[in-house]
Amino acid sequence: MDAVGLASTLERVHDADVAEALNAIDPAAAARVLAALPFELAVRALNQPELDHRARLFEHLPIDRAVALMGAMSADQRADVFRGLPQRVAARLLAAVDRGTQDSLRSLLNYPPTTAGGIMTTEHVEAPATWTVERALVQIRSGGHARRPVYAVYVLDPVDRRLVHTVTLRELVLADPTRTLLEVGDRHPPVTVRAWTDREETARLIAKYDLLAVPVIDEGGHLLGIVTVDDVIDALIKEQTEDVHKLGGMQELDEPYTKVGFWTMIRKRGGWLCALFLSEMLTATAMQHFEGALSRAIVLTLFIPLIMSSGGNSGSQATSLIIRALALREVRLRDWWWIALRELPAGVTLGAILGAIGISRIVSWQLFGFYDYGPHWFLVALAVGFALIGVVTFGSLAGSMLPFVLRRLGFDPASASAPFVATLVDVTGLVIYFSVAYLVLRGTLL
Amino acid sequence: MDAVGLASTLERVHDADVAEALNAIDPAAAARVLAALPFELAVRALNQPELDHRARLFEHLPIDRAVALMGAMSADQRADVFRGLPQRVAARLLAAVDRGTQDSLRSLLNYPPTTAGGIMTTEHVEAPATWTVERALVQIRSGGHARRPVYAVYVLDPVDRRLVHTVTLRELVLADPTRTLLEVGDRHPPVTVRAWTDREETARLIAKYDLLAVPVIDEGGHLLGIVTVDDVIDALIKEQTEDVHKLGGMQELDEPYTKVGFWTMIRKRGGWLCALFLSEMLTATAMQHFEGALSRAIVLTLFIPLIMSSGGNSGSQATSLIIRALALREVRLRDWWWIALRELPAGVTLGAILGAIGISRIVSWQLFGFYDYGPHWFLVALAVGFALIGVVTFGSLAGSMLPFVLRRLGFDPASASAPFVATLVDVTGLVIYFSVAYLVLRGTLL
Repeated sequence: MDAVGLASTLERVHDADVAEALNAIDPAAAARVLAALPFELAVRALNQPELDHRARLFEHLPIDRAVALMGAMSADQRADVFRGLPQRVAARLLAAVDRGTQDSLRSLLNYPPTTAGGIMTTEHVEAPATWTVERALVQIRSGGHARRPVYAVYVLDPVDRRLVHTVTLRELVLADPTRTLLEVGDRHPPVTVRAWTDREETARLIAKYDLLAVPVIDEGGHLLGIVTVDDVIDALIKEQTEDVHKLGGMQELDEPYTKVGFWTMIRKRGGWLCALFLSEMLTATAMQHFEGALSRAIVLTLFIPLIMSSGGNSGSQATSLIIRALALREVRLRDWWWIALRELPAGVTLGAILGAIGISRIVSWQLFGFYDYGPHWFLVALAVGFALIGVVTFGSLAGSMLPFVLRRLGFDPASASAPFVATLVDVTGLVIYFSVAYLVLRGTLL
Repeated sequence: MDAVGLASTLERVHDADVAEALNAIDPAAAARVLAALPFELAVRALNQPELDHRARLFEHLPIDRAVALMGAMSADQRADVFRGLPQRVAARLLAAVDRGTQDSLRSLLNYPPTTAGGIMTTEHVEAPATWTVERALVQIRSGGHARRPVYAVYVLDPVDRRLVHTVTLRELVLADPTRTLLEVGDRHPPVTVRAWTDREETARLIAKYDLLAVPVIDEGGHLLGIVTVDDVIDALIKEQTEDVHKLGGMQELDEPYTKVGFWTMIRKRGGWLCALFLSEMLTATAMQHFEGALSRAIVLTLFIPLIMSSGGNSGSQATSLIIRALALREVRLRDWWWIALRELPAGVTLGAILGAIGISRIVSWQLFGFYDYGPHWFLVALAVGFALIGVVTFGSLAGSMLPFVLRRLGFDPASASAPFVATLVDVTGLVIYFSVAYLVLRGTLL
């Protein structure tokens, strides 16, 4: 590939498309293209979180070019790249960049990438409360690197430098230029987050208050940086992918499905699959316990898959409802008893519907002569019906409580995947089924 | 509740918090509070998509107040409310609002809410390409209703009024005021969407190009409106909720879990639960078919739940991977064969791992004397092991292909829930298990 030729083509397209084009070639070649690109364009491409293997690209770049590009990148993206660098390379680069970049990196790398501090950027416009609108606009124009986002001016107390007010760029443009910053914009205290606030909570605030950026403050109310709406969208999409993977009963992949290695994928899927398999082995133990009943009443085995899957399905529904309600803060940890009181009648109702269908099926198959369920066929039908009520009720209850238990233990409620819930419900489902069957069929079949 | 007292409290808080406070009281009371609120604040509260039952509130408002509030709302939120109004109320309100509002409503209601046209707003700033930066800024300041979003100026061809360029507010503020609009901002052609573009695709573009708003154009390239980043975040969160509900094997709830009525919830859960139950009945039919084998070899029944759940779990993993890869456009419909070629060895590998665990379990239980699997225990162990390879491979293949089939048939791939996949895999899983058992145990146990 002619690196210079490609570079000249890339100059006419969007940054995100440059990143996409670089993703299509291998990292060493991409690093050569980056080195050949005009400096500004290379910086913009590197600022795209969609660019794959950014850390790997830096390992392939000549050191002086790497240092220059690092220094020109936006602070949050630079920190993100640093997190992915091998210790050795990171140390060498950190020693080579200028003092300001070092400080910014050190402070940002304090925070894990799932927190507001971990996705914030330190490039924002701040101004003392005594400034006029005009002076702030002049400041933006003069300091204005056109590529850096300017969503708002963060107004600080001139004495203790605490954040007291925010004025959006739109409010600034619309305002009378002779007013002071405190006189324009919303009267409300600014919406802020702490550096350790979860990124999902940060996204929720930005969405709720329709913000373009939310300021991140420390305990003393001093401004540390801002989280911008585009980073929040990226975080939302990433969380969504993680949630779907977790709900499918596996560890989340950190890379696109098409790019993740075969053995990495096997590891991420195999771990949960084995854990679920080992737990599900309890069903074999439970079945062994009931073998006497099974040998006397083979007919009961016919409905085992049907009853177990109904418990799993109702549990999976309840779990997905609660996971989402917890994520959206519609319910809180302390509301668990309220949910249990609601899921109990829901489970009984749904179980009764399925039970009625199950009984009708057995009765009609018997009466129409499709299959012979033996002399006690009606009792068998009743046992299946009552077992369904019990299993679906238990499934709904267990499924709705599992996310609370996980959250309480400090895990992500989204780990309460359908397979996890089904496994939990399966063993109990078998026990419920056979217990109900004993009660209904004692003296006849059992 | 003292409506005037509450109204005066609400004036000092954020719009989103006003909406939240109104959500906590019943719609009739909320409508009384809205009527007592200062007009501007009532409009801002109504512009919050987080406000529940907005359409119901309008039914409770006096007609003249309702008309005035409707007229002052932002165009996209107004259209959203109109979609929820009963035919009769909608017709009465539409007749009462002014001509401009009527036209804007009619054009926006053309598009379903899952498209860019359905979430766009028509309040944007446009200017002919001949204008200078200064003139555009003056226009923004004079026309400037401070509450309406101004993210960018959309620059139109002065002759045929096609969209030719966009200048963001930031670029406008930083630019030399004497330049013409065409001379400032990005050189690239503007990123645009069509009115019928899916809202998820619109969100993907906004995220990819880090935009604050994306212009919506018609076939001729004329500007219809813009989709803003805050609407996209709301759409993303709504999609995410729908996906989680669908993945849990139910119809998505349109309201928060805490607010949805008991019978609505039963209906949304019961529908899928019954459909899955009816399909799962095929397992009973399959089991009936194998009853002869079952009565001769009860020991085989012990592992039915274990084997079936493993198929379901591996299918659920594969499905969740492909759903997400399709949503993020990492794979396309035509890539199905590539995925199948990848899932085949993955399924065999995962199945072999589980098979090895299953065989070890049976062998060790037998050798340590925990349970007696009969004289042919080793053949039983082999049958279970090979069945696991077959079932997990089939699960991975079926699970990964289901989202493609659904997309091809015009359904949302996210409907390929774990319960759906498990049901699909269960019947085949039984058939695979018994077929493998026949092969391995023929002449001995069967």
